[in-house]
Amino acid sequence: MLENPYYTADVHKDFTLISIGELALEEGGVIPDCTLAVRTWGTLNEARDNAILITTWYSGTHQIWADAYVGPEHALDPEKYFIVCVNQIGNGLSVSPHNTADASISASRFPHVRIGDDVVAQERLLREHFGIERLALVVGGSMGAQQTYEWAVRFPDKVLRAAPIAGTAKNTPHDFLFTETLNEQIWSDPGWNGGEYASNLDVHDGLARHSHLWATMGFSTEFWKQEKWADLGFASCDAFLSDFLEPYFTAMDPNALLTMAWKWQRGDVSRHTDGDLAAALARITARVLVMPISEDMFFPVRDCAAEQALIPRSELRVIDDVSGHLGLFAINPAFIPQVDAALRELLAAQ
Amino acid sequence: MLENPYYTADVHKDFTLISIGELALEEGGVIPDCTLAVRTWGTLNEARDNAILITTWYSGTHQIWADAYVGPEHALDPEKYFIVCVNQIGNGLSVSPHNTADASISASRFPHVRIGDDVVAQERLLREHFGIERLALVVGGSMGAQQTYEWAVRFPDKVLRAAPIAGTAKNTPHDFLFTETLNEQIWSDPGWNGGEYASNLDVHDGLARHSHLWATMGFSTEFWKQEKWADLGFASCDAFLSDFLEPYFTAMDPNALLTMAWKWQRGDVSRHTDGDLAAALARITARVLVMPISEDMFFPVRDCAAEQALIPRSELRVIDDVSGHLGLFAINPAFIPQVDAALRELLAAQ
Repeated sequence: MLENPYYTADVHKDFTLISIGELALEEGGVIPDCTLAVRTWGTLNEARDNAILITTWYSGTHQIWADAYVGPEHALDPEKYFIVCVNQIGNGLSVSPHNTADASISASRFPHVRIGDDVVAQERLLREHFGIERLALVVGGSMGAQQTYEWAVRFPDKVLRAAPIAGTAKNTPHDFLFTETLNEQIWSDPGWNGGEYASNLDVHDGLARHSHLWATMGFSTEFWKQEKWADLGFASCDAFLSDFLEPYFTAMDPNALLTMAWKWQRGDVSRHTDGDLAAALARITARVLVMPISEDMFFPVRDCAAEQALIPRSELRVIDDVSGHLGLFAINPAFIPQVDAALRELLAAQ
Repeated sequence: MLENPYYTADVHKDFTLISIGELALEEGGVIPDCTLAVRTWGTLNEARDNAILITTWYSGTHQIWADAYVGPEHALDPEKYFIVCVNQIGNGLSVSPHNTADASISASRFPHVRIGDDVVAQERLLREHFGIERLALVVGGSMGAQQTYEWAVRFPDKVLRAAPIAGTAKNTPHDFLFTETLNEQIWSDPGWNGGEYASNLDVHDGLARHSHLWATMGFSTEFWKQEKWADLGFASCDAFLSDFLEPYFTAMDPNALLTMAWKWQRGDVSRHTDGDLAAALARITARVLVMPISEDMFFPVRDCAAEQALIPRSELRVIDDVSGHLGLFAINPAFIPQVDAALRELLAAQ
């Protein structure tokens, strides 16, 4: 186990660690004691029909949802819903390469995990720990959208509504390549040492380069041209990098990022239907709002729209945001109102 | 001087090295013996009014123009025009960090060169060596578009027509950041050694990573989704990387790429007008066709269109190509016909 102050309650508040026991993985590995970091809001009603599941994105945790998306002023309203955010496996809070006490899966020995493994783990957690059999809504962004689609295809009877934001049901080749360039920034740092580093600080340079790729692909060309970082209180483009993006990513665990990236690259609901994406998406019975971000550089609207067209009870709802993919951070004041309006409409629909 | 088989007549045919003497640079450095690699086609007529200048892009040379753009079947027709392609300073053929015999500027000591330095050198070459005072057309792609704009703003009386393809007059902040990520792949390779390597092969890994960034930004998301590499005879996405993009970039000189990148990042015609881009572009008297590529990820159409709107005798002509920026390689059979049609129209206009 490695110390890392980023993955503590000081930064990530009010979460609980819950073990779902042994998790056998699609790729053949095993997580002997699969511990999930879970944040909840609100109360499950007697009918057990007001549960919402939030899934997390690459490098993300429940905290951004707590800070920006959930609250009585939002569609994700704890006064109405019992909201459960499950941190994805390998995100540094749930069981991950750096935080497991089990030497058989620590650091470089952490097994390959798939989106489907996360969803199976989440379903077991919800059923066994909370007694939840059906979800009023599954919502997530980016890799969280991958999990949302996986839920709707794998467990169609359990998902009444789904809102995949800025992500796809089947990962695209371009996305695979982009994610690989993120990985290469880590792998190429001698401090990474095949995953056997003593501290994430040993991989500082690689993680800093990794953050620079997020600068060019995570935001849009127009975000930079319009100097939108100024709206966030930064004095310059350089300051936005050195005081926000670099510290944000260099604080993280390199093996955690690599674990998530491996999943992200291979997200694909058509694994359920022998590679037939249309057949997989046709399984979905949930009402679905497909919500790409207008300026997303790597989950572009057209990729999301093409999938939406294959989902029976679905609608495309483009979120207009010049920020690009990392609009998910809710940095533009106009972002959350669009998400809220869409989710309110979806939650009101039968 | 370092041996590098890529920068030889075996690969780059029919070019001539011409010295224009000492070149004092905008940033204060000096190239004592500025040797330019020049490729010409056709004959200068008696009126000396049929000259066309071609400028080169980052990592590019005259060879792609010879292979794809110039010929009797093209708008750039050697039977009508005297066509001069000048390789940019630092591109590995013209004077560059690895090929200079002058130890004062070799390898890590090569001075910072600006787009304006290239254009000053080209103007001197054309005037002193070829007796050319006016150009029927300046045309170039990407960094070649930067040089094209610089020509039209710096020497308005010498440029009758200009065709900047897939590039901007003032580099964008996003472009700067993207180029920096390219540089970082080289800098982070221990074999680069501050620019004092024994062979470009010492920097193979960094150059390979560099090529992977071109995969995600140089081509469009749709290029990959539609598997357009298959049209080029490759059996898979992986083969396109390992058999084309990686060998293409790893053959190059790392310091040459860094020299070009430094220029690219700082291309800006508004240096002539105290930062006033509109004033700089208003200087242009040439007839201009601004030609972005529809799917370009880092010189997007809107950035080019915004500049075009500031140029008096100009028109926007978007080249429709799913390839993205590296459509410049003329990999799509529909690319060159669009360029030819536009250039023919431009050359026919007064």
